[in-house]
Amino acid sequence: MAPKVTLHYFNLRARGELIRWILSYSGQEWVDHRIEFAEWPAIKATTPFGQLPYIEIEGKEPLAQTYAIARYLSRQHGLAGTNAWEEGQVDALADYAADAAKGFSTYVQAFMAKDEKKAQAAREEYTGTTVKPFLSTFEKTLQHNKSGSDYLVGTKPSWADFVVVQLLDEAQRLKSDLLDPFPLLKAHQDRVHNLKGIKEFLAKRPETPL
Amino acid sequence: MAPKVTLHYFNLRARGELIRWILSYSGQEWVDHRIEFAEWPAIKATTPFGQLPYIEIEGKEPLAQTYAIARYLSRQHGLAGTNAWEEGQVDALADYAADAAKGFSTYVQAFMAKDEKKAQAAREEYTGTTVKPFLSTFEKTLQHNKSGSDYLVGTKPSWADFVVVQLLDEAQRLKSDLLDPFPLLKAHQDRVHNLKGIKEFLAKRPETPL
Repeated sequence: MAPKVTLHYFNLRARGELIRWILSYSGQEWVDHRIEFAEWPAIKATTPFGQLPYIEIEGKEPLAQTYAIARYLSRQHGLAGTNAWEEGQVDALADYAADAAKGFSTYVQAFMAKDEKKAQAAREEYTGTTVKPFLSTFEKTLQHNKSGSDYLVGTKPSWADFVVVQLLDEAQRLKSDLLDPFPLLKAHQDRVHNLKGIKEFLAKRPETPL
Repeated sequence: MAPKVTLHYFNLRARGELIRWILSYSGQEWVDHRIEFAEWPAIKATTPFGQLPYIEIEGKEPLAQTYAIARYLSRQHGLAGTNAWEEGQVDALADYAADAAKGFSTYVQAFMAKDEKKAQAAREEYTGTTVKPFLSTFEKTLQHNKSGSDYLVGTKPSWADFVVVQLLDEAQRLKSDLLDPFPLLKAHQDRVHNLKGIKEFLAKRPETPL
């Protein structure tokens, strides 16, 4: 049995959610430690790089950085690709999705600052322009891989599927019909949401603004 | 023998340089295809994600995204960590260094736009404030690992060493005495610059503004 993992992150989806999905999918025991903003200043200096998220695994030093954690855990649970080339493709898609998320972060900053006018402009820019070429590329990637009947890379789910579906989920919160021109992505989103472990996690996760 | 790799990137260090160092260190045959800005619009649609860098490996589809390429090649050439936990630490340090590079990109944008006043302000902000906590963390990481006599992770060089030394090199171009308070980092920078393959590449690489 895998040693117990504790995830330390804010009470938000944001950067912590990818790791939560991987751990939920894995079926292993894990602790979802959610940190309140008021607690953060006192905790910051105790983290590896002064950042969240990080994980603690029984018997090891803490590990930081969302993607490093995601990849480490994914390799243990069959979510990283089934060979070196698939691992490279999974990494490329995950990093490409992070490029799209940079546009989203402009919205997040305005939202956190409670600047409603700026948040509305950022929301329109992101959903109307920024994210669309990314959605087209993901749709083509699915089409290219087994005509879209399956996952982004190979024949099994990977953490790149989780990254992309979380990007879709967050973008849809800002514009609910955003995926209408992308039928393969819509079906893929459903497929991932219904994976064992993910479905159960989604049913019970707390409501948070981000 | 490894199949021939072609790197496609602009005639800049920037995002291509990490891959160039890995390939130079590997000792394998590779092609350094440098694309002029005037050529780029015609090439863009032929790349996997409309971005540079990407690589082509004989017999495979192209692979995009700097870090995905770096990790894929590093695993083949002993630069990715010697076990799963070291790989996780290498990934974490590389991603953490990318956080520092975000501050650098403000300078790059002003430089490319030829806005000298803005570039000067960004240069001061980056070298005076932004990069310093990162340098402290890297210095501590070296100290923590074999008292700084070696590399960032374990006992062998990894692509995280290359990422960090390139961050140091670029920051030093903006402020030459930046590393004076960080003796372990300075020694580490020398150690990496003198690795077989890297030393030879540095002696012959073209001069470029970034």
